[in-house]
Amino acid sequence: MRGIWLEDGNLSLRHDLPVPEPPAGEVRVRVLRAGICNTDIELQRGYYPYRGILGHEFVGVVESGHEAWTGKRVVGGINASCGKCGTCTSERKTHCPHRTVLGIVGRDGAFADYLTLPVENLLEVPESISNDAATFTEPLAAALQVREQVQINPHDNVLVVGDGKLGLLIAQVLKLAGCRVVAVGRHAGKLDLLRQRGIEVELAEAFRQTGFDLAVECTGNEAGFTMARNALRPRGTLVMKSTYAGSLTLDASSLVVDEINLVGSRCGPFAPALKLLESGAMDVEPLIHDRFSLDSGLQAFERAIAPGILKVLLHVGD
Amino acid sequence: MRGIWLEDGNLSLRHDLPVPEPPAGEVRVRVLRAGICNTDIELQRGYYPYRGILGHEFVGVVESGHEAWTGKRVVGGINASCGKCGTCTSERKTHCPHRTVLGIVGRDGAFADYLTLPVENLLEVPESISNDAATFTEPLAAALQVREQVQINPHDNVLVVGDGKLGLLIAQVLKLAGCRVVAVGRHAGKLDLLRQRGIEVELAEAFRQTGFDLAVECTGNEAGFTMARNALRPRGTLVMKSTYAGSLTLDASSLVVDEINLVGSRCGPFAPALKLLESGAMDVEPLIHDRFSLDSGLQAFERAIAPGILKVLLHVGD
Repeated sequence: MRGIWLEDGNLSLRHDLPVPEPPAGEVRVRVLRAGICNTDIELQRGYYPYRGILGHEFVGVVESGHEAWTGKRVVGGINASCGKCGTCTSERKTHCPHRTVLGIVGRDGAFADYLTLPVENLLEVPESISNDAATFTEPLAAALQVREQVQINPHDNVLVVGDGKLGLLIAQVLKLAGCRVVAVGRHAGKLDLLRQRGIEVELAEAFRQTGFDLAVECTGNEAGFTMARNALRPRGTLVMKSTYAGSLTLDASSLVVDEINLVGSRCGPFAPALKLLESGAMDVEPLIHDRFSLDSGLQAFERAIAPGILKVLLHVGD
Repeated sequence: MRGIWLEDGNLSLRHDLPVPEPPAGEVRVRVLRAGICNTDIELQRGYYPYRGILGHEFVGVVESGHEAWTGKRVVGGINASCGKCGTCTSERKTHCPHRTVLGIVGRDGAFADYLTLPVENLLEVPESISNDAATFTEPLAAALQVREQVQINPHDNVLVVGDGKLGLLIAQVLKLAGCRVVAVGRHAGKLDLLRQRGIEVELAEAFRQTGFDLAVECTGNEAGFTMARNALRPRGTLVMKSTYAGSLTLDASSLVVDEINLVGSRCGPFAPALKLLESGAMDVEPLIHDRFSLDSGLQAFERAIAPGILKVLLHVGD
């Protein structure tokens, strides 16, 4: 089968990959669409060691491995956990120390004709959700994780720093809490997507507001972190939603004096993400900036790293 | 009157200070005992700019300014807030941007014959609490603030890093939640105070445990922070209870991937601290390592910064 292979920082489109046989408890999924995420780009740049097929945002059809699921259109949680260790039995399966992660840690990913995942990771996609929209289930779940971790009240003032793919999803998700949301970024065009949904937007160079109850940092750089932190009121909460290249240096004493709460946030719940997509409350398709076939996957990566480009989708099958 | 005066990093014992006249809404307190805190030492070292009388841990007797309070033995909240701004009306008075702080920010402190504080900051000390014990109200309140900010469950595994004054109070306070508490420090003698109260203790150089739900960092140095962070389970909480000299460099990506919660923690509630002292559930007097008269206040500071020394009290009056 075909697949986009990462090895020693080099991407290649391979045609010689074996079609994976699902082990017990897993299914084989034929991939329909897959989305390129910043994590894929970071993996290529070598921020984390990984060798294999990239990709973790997908929608596909179950082909084999479990009779009841066969033929169903699915998305799937990307963390495959052992289910037995203390972390798993404490309801923190996405943190299982023995986990593999689709296209990220020890498990071939979705930029290929086929992938395998445990049955328990699958969710059926309602008919009304298009293939394109369904590929946003994973990043939308990551956005929803902020709401799993932090209580947001309708009277809160919330700041989202960063107008990349994740920032645009998070701003929309937080706006659904009924609170005031201000989004700050560097691209007027991207921010316009939010303005149309009642979200206040401001360009980073002009941003001077303070007193926010909650700030969500989606840039993964120190300038974004500093902007989010400085905009908080005392006892405010800063959610760190992006990974950072290298270490972060911060004024720890001011975090103590102002009693700031920093919350690291990663993968989130798929089922509510699907429900949100089904409801029509999210506007994800305008985030798609380009589409490529899997055969043009390397060009798709080139496109995904170009400045100002949001989601690039891979059309793998039908 | 007498007072220990800080100016440009130099401490002096002055006898020429005016007895303060309480402004409207404030009282004059005759100081009985005062405790030297690490913050006093940090102020002397110039970590924060302050010029005036040091000291914020005290017990005293109200002398004038409010008839009903006159003659009562009191402790007092150290933050004097405006009461009118948005921060104050949002129940975050200790963070009022216009606040003065006793012996720390713009308000003469307790290492003197007299101080003034707003009436609303006062709490009467129950008769059963000794003067020595009552000087621990402020640091004990700071210890209790951890429990105001973080839910601690009886089945939690809790780590306290640091066996200084604050660490020893915090370990005791957290143990009252019924959870397992492990305290790590560098001084077997100090840790013994905790062992007697059912708290597991371990010397820092031998400490290798992991999987803690909560870690409270009371050292204020990067090694302590790193030890606390590495001991946490995924989705664990790290409370930062000490201020840090300079900035802190951390692996932000690991905080995101492990969804760690960092919580800055400062001043706490006085009323529950007094109740705890009254109940006898806390063992504070063994933390007193030395006592000096106010006239020997400079020697008291020398003693307080000596290695291994816990609380040094100033005997100001009777």
